[in-house]
Amino acid sequence: MRFAVLGAGRIGQVHARAIASVDGAELAAVSDPVARAAEAVRDRFGCEVRTVDDVEDSSDIDAVVICSPTDTHADLIERFSRAGKAVFCEKPVDLDVQRVRTCLDVVDRCGTALMVGFQRRFDPDFRTLKEAVDQGQVGDVEMVTLTSRDPGPPPYEYIKRSGGLFRDMTIHDLDMARWLLGEEVESVFAAASVLVDPKIGELGDYDSANLILTTASGKHCAITNSRRASYGYDQRIEVHGSHGTASAGNHHGARIEIAGKSGFTRPPLLDFFMSRYAAAYAAEIEAFAVSVQSGTPPPVTGHDGLQALLLAEAAVQSVKEGREVNVAELHF
Amino acid sequence: MRFAVLGAGRIGQVHARAIASVDGAELAAVSDPVARAAEAVRDRFGCEVRTVDDVEDSSDIDAVVICSPTDTHADLIERFSRAGKAVFCEKPVDLDVQRVRTCLDVVDRCGTALMVGFQRRFDPDFRTLKEAVDQGQVGDVEMVTLTSRDPGPPPYEYIKRSGGLFRDMTIHDLDMARWLLGEEVESVFAAASVLVDPKIGELGDYDSANLILTTASGKHCAITNSRRASYGYDQRIEVHGSHGTASAGNHHGARIEIAGKSGFTRPPLLDFFMSRYAAAYAAEIEAFAVSVQSGTPPPVTGHDGLQALLLAEAAVQSVKEGREVNVAELHF
Amino acid sequence: MRFAVLGAGRIGQVHARAIASVDGAELAAVSDPVARAAEAVRDRFGCEVRTVDDVEDSSDIDAVVICSPTDTHADLIERFSRAGKAVFCEKPVDLDVQRVRTCLDVVDRCGTALMVGFQRRFDPDFRTLKEAVDQGQVGDVEMVTLTSRDPGPPPYEYIKRSGGLFRDMTIHDLDMARWLLGEEVESVFAAASVLVDPKIGELGDYDSANLILTTASGKHCAITNSRRASYGYDQRIEVHGSHGTASAGNHHGARIEIAGKSGFTRPPLLDFFMSRYAAAYAAEIEAFAVSVQSGTPPPVTGHDGLQALLLAEAAVQSVKEGREVNVAELHF
Amino acid sequence: MRFAVLGAGRIGQVHARAIASVDGAELAAVSDPVARAAEAVRDRFGCEVRTVDDVEDSSDIDAVVICSPTDTHADLIERFSRAGKAVFCEKPVDLDVQRVRTCLDVVDRCGTALMVGFQRRFDPDFRTLKEAVDQGQVGDVEMVTLTSRDPGPPPYEYIKRSGGLFRDMTIHDLDMARWLLGEEVESVFAAASVLVDPKIGELGDYDSANLILTTASGKHCAITNSRRASYGYDQRIEVHGSHGTASAGNHHGARIEIAGKSGFTRPPLLDFFMSRYAAAYAAEIEAFAVSVQSGTPPPVTGHDGLQALLLAEAAVQSVKEGREVNVAELHF
Repeated sequence: MRFAVLGAGRIGQVHARAIASVDGAELAAVSDPVARAAEAVRDRFGCEVRTVDDVEDSSDIDAVVICSPTDTHADLIERFSRAGKAVFCEKPVDLDVQRVRTCLDVVDRCGTALMVGFQRRFDPDFRTLKEAVDQGQVGDVEMVTLTSRDPGPPPYEYIKRSGGLFRDMTIHDLDMARWLLGEEVESVFAAASVLVDPKIGELGDYDSANLILTTASGKHCAITNSRRASYGYDQRIEVHGSHGTASAGNHHGARIEIAGKSGFTRPPLLDFFMSRYAAAYAAEIEAFAVSVQSGTPPPVTGHDGLQALLLAEAAVQSVKEGREVNVAELHF
Repeated sequence: MRFAVLGAGRIGQVHARAIASVDGAELAAVSDPVARAAEAVRDRFGCEVRTVDDVEDSSDIDAVVICSPTDTHADLIERFSRAGKAVFCEKPVDLDVQRVRTCLDVVDRCGTALMVGFQRRFDPDFRTLKEAVDQGQVGDVEMVTLTSRDPGPPPYEYIKRSGGLFRDMTIHDLDMARWLLGEEVESVFAAASVLVDPKIGELGDYDSANLILTTASGKHCAITNSRRASYGYDQRIEVHGSHGTASAGNHHGARIEIAGKSGFTRPPLLDFFMSRYAAAYAAEIEAFAVSVQSGTPPPVTGHDGLQALLLAEAAVQSVKEGREVNVAELHF
Repeated sequence: MRFAVLGAGRIGQVHARAIASVDGAELAAVSDPVARAAEAVRDRFGCEVRTVDDVEDSSDIDAVVICSPTDTHADLIERFSRAGKAVFCEKPVDLDVQRVRTCLDVVDRCGTALMVGFQRRFDPDFRTLKEAVDQGQVGDVEMVTLTSRDPGPPPYEYIKRSGGLFRDMTIHDLDMARWLLGEEVESVFAAASVLVDPKIGELGDYDSANLILTTASGKHCAITNSRRASYGYDQRIEVHGSHGTASAGNHHGARIEIAGKSGFTRPPLLDFFMSRYAAAYAAEIEAFAVSVQSGTPPPVTGHDGLQALLLAEAAVQSVKEGREVNVAELHF
Repeated sequence: MRFAVLGAGRIGQVHARAIASVDGAELAAVSDPVARAAEAVRDRFGCEVRTVDDVEDSSDIDAVVICSPTDTHADLIERFSRAGKAVFCEKPVDLDVQRVRTCLDVVDRCGTALMVGFQRRFDPDFRTLKEAVDQGQVGDVEMVTLTSRDPGPPPYEYIKRSGGLFRDMTIHDLDMARWLLGEEVESVFAAASVLVDPKIGELGDYDSANLILTTASGKHCAITNSRRASYGYDQRIEVHGSHGTASAGNHHGARIEIAGKSGFTRPPLLDFFMSRYAAAYAAEIEAFAVSVQSGTPPPVTGHDGLQALLLAEAAVQSVKEGREVNVAELHF
């Protein structure tokens, strides 16, 4: 299976490396408006540089991985679905719900595969936890608790175009919530604050949030988010059920501990999502390749991307109105 | 300093033992309508059995510890405050906010000491965490996360008279939130479900809840409660701040681990609040004795009891209305 | 059961407190050549001050707890055994093997109970580990690993009279080894160094040691000792068997962790054997009381004391000769 | 830098993959008497299949990685050193000390690079620990404790040709001891038993061992080895020094924990040295490539291989004679 990567930035490189490491997958081409960026990927992974138009016309390309800026996602998805390619697209499909819907309609009509990049579902630890939950090791799931804290806030320029904390950062937790609860979320309450950097507030965004999601049967998911954690990239899951609780923990820089006069100290956490989720990115591409080759639906669909975005929209509205927002009442 | 314990039930015995273990404190008398219960305490700790009337008239009693049923608390507090005794009362002062207020007014007029029993503040681990936070070890506090899960639900009879999950169980977390946030809580959102036992729902109560509290400056506290945890008494604190995060963990049955074919296993948690908080109960009584003897205000006042109850009331209303409730809008 | 404590020093106070906390045990008298020390115990625990002669003649004393200096142990054991009292004696019975033997002969002839103070066997964590091992949770025991490090070396004066590292400190591990291996130790290899303080070497002692014990069937116990550990009192056990490994861990000052820029830090360990083993000392006295009252042999006998001393002698000889020493070849 | 891998078995594949993942390294050829094995590596990593003779004559090969059976190592090292290639050889150079010496002499005369495969030195956790120790974070090193337990014993055929427990398995720990002590080992005491499988004893080998190594200045290293650990591949390091203790821990199958009625369970350890040390194997080849390209001595030399073997010889003799054996007294 031959891939083209569209966009040779940070996340494009992550996916290029992932493709190179997957048996049966081959990185055939890379595309980027910045020639130097595309060439760097070519030199590192031994593929060709092509324009997006060329890729679209290439009969030797089976699938594209879209790593370009968010506002190009929906157009590219439509274009390559129409060209009959399998498409993997980094989240989000678009920041506008209506645009996502029309895009997914196009994909549906094309009958091609679309997978959206929620890489956390492919993290080996989270996967093992999920399997344990599915095997009933904690009984009936009752409460999910998700903690996600970034080492530090992104640049202001990024924040401006990000769609805000809920659509950019929380959206990963919203997808995890759906995945782990095993039942669709019905309502969302969100509280958000500016505690890390007042400038983020001036840009109309938040840097700290807590959410409670509720399903029809009354299961809860509590989410804690912060744009700052001095000790690294804090990513934890806890699933509480009728028979017990399963938890998945953090990745320290090394598995060592130093005991001295002032106590026992372990290193800080990995402080970059790419190192923290390196294995997840590789497993994600592998799962995409397997689904395309076997003709089964991708493990994370465009619908999953849409649902997570709807929950983010509900969160935005909840903060504005100080009340629980039912996803069904959202109008777009 | 000579004490009388009013109520020789489970919690009365805990306090009797605590008094016996504190230097400078002496258990002089115990009182209980059930003679056998009072005599058991007498035999175990070597004090006298007296009626409540006798205790009230006893010039050799400096302080009373009220461990009788909740609906007697406010009356006994007023009575013994008028009698000039220092009073320690198990939470809550009363389940009715108005009754608490009139009771606290009486105490104020008497000018006597009243301490309310939120023993968690005296747990050695939580205290060490609080000291670290106060010393600035996590910087400015931004988010507090509290997890409290009971091993199993109490008897139905207890639930009926308990005032419900928020006033009975969550109230401890509400007090911890106030203590740890270092700022008064302004608004409360609560979501509650019946997931453990439908009978609890039939009694008009909940067994599972998640709350988000917010202060004026936008700090949050997230609380997770369940009436069931197969692995014991789950009690955790996390305080996230601008420079780091402090956490306090659980008490396992023993500090051992067994590694075998199916993994590494540590024993379940202590499964009873009395063993889990044994050290806290002793430290609590000691702090009360110290405050009375030194004439300083007790570390947990009637006002603290009232504030925690108001937060519980806000939670009750929030669940009913599906919105964030501002404590200031509560009318009683 | 009424006790007298002989010796009101540090360890005497520990035992006085232990007796006071055990149901059915009563501290009746304390004895110490230093009147002030005895009076302090009397004032704290409410017993009488008596001379050793008086205690010997007291018909109201059932048992004595010997906490006087080591060189008085054997004489006092003999004297009180002859007086028909049950005797609990702090380790060691004597530093001279021959003296221990004659003393134990006297006790045997008197038919009275003698228990030797190896408190670690009564530590709740170690006991839980031992029970798990006895239940076969690790299969057949193959290797025991013991780590014992003191926070810092004792005063030079203490070292001079201590009998040396093996007879004073390692002896606790030697007893643990016998307890956990479930088979008598046949040979001992010991390597010892002076790494902490050259003065300790000048006094003819060591401050750092590693030992390997071997049983007839080839099971091993490895022991690591140091007189210095900057992070507190380091006391660990690991029992490796055919089906797994059981381990018992350390006691930190509090169950908290602070995460910050430089990592995740837990407090140092408890740094004093009395706080670390507080629960063990109480359980030890309780086990003694139970054995005396039920007429069953004490859980740690004079023979156990002798065997541990013999292993220490073998260690001393092993260091001298740079070879494994068989306990059977020791001549006294 | 272009590599040939000699030997396409399990460890040859590990090294082929490692070479493929290192920037600036290229796998050019593979060689194996079993054509199918060589072809599998060719197909997986895209290199040529060549005979050993061809590799020797290939001017396009800069370095060889010897992964053939142990009894071919010394011959191949000599042959390729004479051919002017840089050589990386899996441990051991040979099981015979004299043969190792003559081989190293040849390498010396050729002036080519030889690196011996002690991959543990390149494990990221162990490396971080070593850096902390080198930075003085535990002060002066006093005692090193190494625990190495295999999930299960190797096949009897392997044991027969392995040189025995000390030369095959302990040798890794002996190298780690030298690396971590920062001072050459002077004497070795070893105790060994057959506890896992009597058949191993019948083959003249042991399956369980404990060792104590001592340096000139009296530092110790204690090593614990077993051929069986039901819970996976147990690999731990502890370095105790004047200011503290550094420890490096195990790799569980996943970073999850399941709490239930019977306790808190984490998954068993990785149970294969190739998954456990995957990162170490890659870092090892990278360090070799860097040293060859920069012309600096390889980080693990033939001398290191020889010294570890001499310590293993001392251990063998120590078991036989029941005494500490000084490395200087060994005659070959």
